[in-house]
Amino acid sequence: MSKYDIIVLGSGPGGYVTAIRASQLGFKTAVVEKESLGGVCLNWGCIPTKALLKSAQVFEYLKHAEDYGLSVKDADKDFDAVVKRSRNVADGMSKGVQFLLKKNKVDVINGYGKVKPGKKVDVDGTEYSADHIIIATGARSRELPSLPQDGKKVIGYREALTLEKQPKKMIIVGSGAIGVEFAYFYNSMGTEVTVVEYMPKIVPVEDVDVSKQLERSFKKSGIKIMTSAEVTSVDTSGKGVKATVKTKKGEEILEADMVLSAVGIKTNIENIGLEDVGIVVDRDKIIVNDYYQTNIPGYYAIGDVTPGQALAHVASAEGILCVEKIAGQHVEALDYGNIPGCTYCTPEIASVGFTEAQAKEQGYDIKVGKFPFSASGKASAGGNKDGFVKVIFDAKYGEWLGCHMIGSGVTDMIAEAVLGRKLETTGHEVLKAVHPHPTMSEAVMEAVAAAYDEVIHI
Amino acid sequence: MSKYDIIVLGSGPGGYVTAIRASQLGFKTAVVEKESLGGVCLNWGCIPTKALLKSAQVFEYLKHAEDYGLSVKDADKDFDAVVKRSRNVADGMSKGVQFLLKKNKVDVINGYGKVKPGKKVDVDGTEYSADHIIIATGARSRELPSLPQDGKKVIGYREALTLEKQPKKMIIVGSGAIGVEFAYFYNSMGTEVTVVEYMPKIVPVEDVDVSKQLERSFKKSGIKIMTSAEVTSVDTSGKGVKATVKTKKGEEILEADMVLSAVGIKTNIENIGLEDVGIVVDRDKIIVNDYYQTNIPGYYAIGDVTPGQALAHVASAEGILCVEKIAGQHVEALDYGNIPGCTYCTPEIASVGFTEAQAKEQGYDIKVGKFPFSASGKASAGGNKDGFVKVIFDAKYGEWLGCHMIGSGVTDMIAEAVLGRKLETTGHEVLKAVHPHPTMSEAVMEAVAAAYDEVIHI
Repeated sequence: MSKYDIIVLGSGPGGYVTAIRASQLGFKTAVVEKESLGGVCLNWGCIPTKALLKSAQVFEYLKHAEDYGLSVKDADKDFDAVVKRSRNVADGMSKGVQFLLKKNKVDVINGYGKVKPGKKVDVDGTEYSADHIIIATGARSRELPSLPQDGKKVIGYREALTLEKQPKKMIIVGSGAIGVEFAYFYNSMGTEVTVVEYMPKIVPVEDVDVSKQLERSFKKSGIKIMTSAEVTSVDTSGKGVKATVKTKKGEEILEADMVLSAVGIKTNIENIGLEDVGIVVDRDKIIVNDYYQTNIPGYYAIGDVTPGQALAHVASAEGILCVEKIAGQHVEALDYGNIPGCTYCTPEIASVGFTEAQAKEQGYDIKVGKFPFSASGKASAGGNKDGFVKVIFDAKYGEWLGCHMIGSGVTDMIAEAVLGRKLETTGHEVLKAVHPHPTMSEAVMEAVAAAYDEVIHI
Repeated sequence: MSKYDIIVLGSGPGGYVTAIRASQLGFKTAVVEKESLGGVCLNWGCIPTKALLKSAQVFEYLKHAEDYGLSVKDADKDFDAVVKRSRNVADGMSKGVQFLLKKNKVDVINGYGKVKPGKKVDVDGTEYSADHIIIATGARSRELPSLPQDGKKVIGYREALTLEKQPKKMIIVGSGAIGVEFAYFYNSMGTEVTVVEYMPKIVPVEDVDVSKQLERSFKKSGIKIMTSAEVTSVDTSGKGVKATVKTKKGEEILEADMVLSAVGIKTNIENIGLEDVGIVVDRDKIIVNDYYQTNIPGYYAIGDVTPGQALAHVASAEGILCVEKIAGQHVEALDYGNIPGCTYCTPEIASVGFTEAQAKEQGYDIKVGKFPFSASGKASAGGNKDGFVKVIFDAKYGEWLGCHMIGSGVTDMIAEAVLGRKLETTGHEVLKAVHPHPTMSEAVMEAVAAAYDEVIHI
């Protein structure tokens, strides 16, 4: 029986990063994977969607070439080629993970892994043992009882990435990051898209101003949006689908070629031996402490299977912290209040910390500043005037409570807020950090200035 | 005679920002401008060049549509329309400044201003007085004796922005930000471009790795580059121009339609009354202290006319600081070691702090980390694999000495390094600030990890 210091179950952005860091720290490490290396993120999530979205963004440039003093004839997309490019990018990244694991001397065990008592892992009948077993099996698309996925007419994100034929009409249920990214992509490609959101606003976890801006931008681009609306049943017996949508006004029947269900995730914690070992699970999540230890010594869990935000960068950070702790390093527990979230439709969304509503709920006396990109020179030059940066500070102590951005390229701008908040910056310090001109990032400085009544450009 | 608290000479990004902030602080303020509001930056610099560059970038997408699964026929540019768009953007921004000045109750005095003794300003024969006079008259394109500009065949940036006819062949002398931005733009439009640089490498103020990467990218896109080369004379007597270029190998004659001289700037300090008042000037710059006071009480200078970096954001920051000090606020002197610089060709360049060579010259024992975008998932998905992030830390105390980026969108990413350095971050803190996945900004975290031998993705 092969013996390792550390075995990681799952090779997503939690698992493979954990395994590499473990090996760097001197542990003999293996990672178990039943499908492609890189997990959902690389193969069916973050990466291939970004490739599709890039094609959509370039297609928008083609369609609006005249706005830039350019001209084209017959601008068109080849849906198959767009999907193929996305698959090629994903495959390339998966091969990259293979290379990285090999370079870092991590063994890859292909197969379905289950934890067993006595710090063992079973992979399709073969047993391995390890001093530390880290569960990083991730999650999959959640199925609503009213919306069972058949993979053809009612699909999840996985099928949405590789449709053989572009649908003419699509209903997207759920307007979180996955829902709105696909909404933008399919609408741009020419599909007629309707987004159905149960909550009163789209991208419900974002600040209300962000939701409103995205709704405006989406409606302008032709996407139909129904909020406070619920798909109560779907009839797939005919040629397409007929979805019954319940709104405040009553019931409505929508017809489409297919429904994409994007209503969150379900953790992969079934049939991996948790009960056998006695690992405690609560509300679909494995319960862990600050260092990702489960209730059973030697067994750890990180990533989507644990209670923190189900995001790739959270999984990676948790895994690194988990093995650094095992290695005896001094580690600081992850601050789940300082995790950025990004959505890559156009306009992009990026945020960290409290929304304005949350800050008020928490009882803070707040200062709020907002700077619209319509007042930014760089945004004007680039033709990207939609959106804004909104910042929220505690009025008393100057703590940067939240930062909410919507606009071109903001997913690459949120890191400033994350680092600033980590370093306990005040608004004054952000204001006096000289931001280069002309950039979109000046909007952060200006939004802070607006919070303190010192804004120059509005 | 009209009396003000503060009169600002010049309405560039130094002058108009200073005037707005002064007015916010309660001062009765006027700004004197001989041309368009917004100065060179808005009318002939930062903003219109970014508009041209955006057209060039979109044109590249049109030319490479197939890479994204898209197709077009007859992709073409309308040079006049591209220039017209750029002028419209600049005009819009200039009108925006007019609006902002009015909203902030700043008087605009149109005309040519000169300082006079006794805290007076003469504008075309009319006298105004003020308690504080701030000189913000900026700079213009520097003329080399060997390369006198005639505005037709030997031009500066101003003419390069509004050429009536696109040149077939262009020689660009100087490869600083202005030189390489125009090189990228004109090459993209189809002009045959040769860059002649006196120093051994292009973008000579940047880290050597950045220069090398840009040279590779530029050569791949068809731009010719001559380094350690000097244009010793230009013959404009024929149809086009014949430039004699001296290199290590000897002399060479290059033929082109025109030469763009981009060899730095010359301050606008002549005929503005400095001698009359007795304000001390040294090596083409007005000498000021940390609060921008000249040697004569009541007279101040900010922006390009002073010794700091000749950049729009520096001018704005200096002006704000200057009037906040006049208002009696506690102000901290500007840290000229933490000023970011940006160049907006493709790939973009952004940097702050010491280059590797400078850090070594200063005697630091350093740790260097570099992360190539070729290893970034977001860069792969976006088709932006050129470039890298390079970070330099002091090995002993962990100070972040420098950050150098080249790649897509990096001009919006450098603010993180500026804020981090201002807050005296360590590498470890940057590493543990969770950067969102998948973004280009992860490359900052990974470069820091590389400096500390903890990098995951290379």
